[in-house]
Amino acid sequence: MPYVNIKITREGATREQKAALIRGVTDLLQTELGKNPQTTVVVIDEVDTDNWGIGGESVTIRRQLGG
Amino acid sequence: MPYVNIKITREGATREQKAALIRGVTDLLQTELGKNPQTTVVVIDEVDTDNWGIGGESVTIRRQLGG
Amino acid sequence: MPYVNIKITREGATREQKAALIRGVTDLLQTELGKNPQTTVVVIDEVDTDNWGIGGESVTIRRQLGG
Amino acid sequence: MPYVNIKITREGATREQKAALIRGVTDLLQTELGKNPQTTVVVIDEVDTDNWGIGGESVTIRRQLGG
Amino acid sequence: MPYVNIKITREGATREQKAALIRGVTDLLQTELGKNPQTTVVVIDEVDTDNWGIGGESVTIRRQLGG
Amino acid sequence: MPYVNIKITREGATREQKAALIRGVTDLLQTELGKNPQTTVVVIDEVDTDNWGIGGESVTIRRQLGG
Repeated sequence: MPYVNIKITREGATREQKAALIRGVTDLLQTELGKNPQTTVVVIDEVDTDNWGIGGESVTIRRQLGG
Repeated sequence: MPYVNIKITREGATREQKAALIRGVTDLLQTELGKNPQTTVVVIDEVDTDNWGIGGESVTIRRQLGG
Repeated sequence: MPYVNIKITREGATREQKAALIRGVTDLLQTELGKNPQTTVVVIDEVDTDNWGIGGESVTIRRQLGG
Repeated sequence: MPYVNIKITREGATREQKAALIRGVTDLLQTELGKNPQTTVVVIDEVDTDNWGIGGESVTIRRQLGG
Repeated sequence: MPYVNIKITREGATREQKAALIRGVTDLLQTELGKNPQTTVVVIDEVDTDNWGIGGESVTIRRQLGG
Repeated sequence: MPYVNIKITREGATREQKAALIRGVTDLLQTELGKNPQTTVVVIDEVDTDNWGIGGESVTIRRQLGG
């Protein structure tokens, strides 16, 4: 019955990559905590790089600076 | 003063349906807990079916399989 | 399959009141959007009044001021 | 190491305004709590006015009514 | 730089189990999406069974009913 | 009308420090985006160091290692 929210920057993750995340995190919760995979919910949010900040700067700017 | 976040798959909910959700959940919090509706905030997130997983699979794939 | 997160201040909501919220919001999503109640997940967070702010002040202080 | 999520209605916030939010909230956490800005993460969500409710109504409708 | 929030019911997960979740989901994001593990943040929320609902009922009640 | 959620590790932030965060982030949203402070909501979550991971390890372990 776990609920998992994964936030990543929107930079072209494919449908297959997102399916692998969903599968992997569901398996992990079953393996480590015995959680029933049938009721594990995973929601992936892809966030524009203008809207994600770390170190006081947006990822857009960090990428321009080579960060 | 409650804050409610409702996440649903993005599958064509209309403006009217979303208004009914906002109204309904605000009323519910007033009826059950006496919360002032004027300061109840509701945010609805609509999530692509590729980005929503249950049972280890994305909703996109479950829909293709008839799930 | 919806996921709903309800945040309220921690001020003595009873088990019965929280059960009523869970039931009510699950019913609402079925009535308004046709969502299957069996897979609707509701998580209620109760937040200390020191940790909830509105209008630039914590709820603790607003309550002291009669707000 | 804080994580901050800011939700605002989608009404034309510019890249520069969002950068100022990221900078400001990161500085605030350093000033008030001594948090290392290098590991402070800020995520801004811009939400359609149809999907944001307050007082039991969507912001779309409140704006039409002059609210 | 991903941010992952895992919500589970509060039912005695150990420090070691939570460490395994943190490690596992960080590895998964590196393997599947190439994300730098040094900046992947994972937050685990443990939620009382009174405060978690599925199928319109709290987990407390479902456990009593053998669900 | 913004909603801000601040997550920090639970390490003794005082009521006064949390009030300063609430005030500061509310002011910031008014200054940078013109948001009405009366309807800005701020929720602070304090998370146990066992439940917060970065770099694949819990903060508890990082602190033990001098990180």
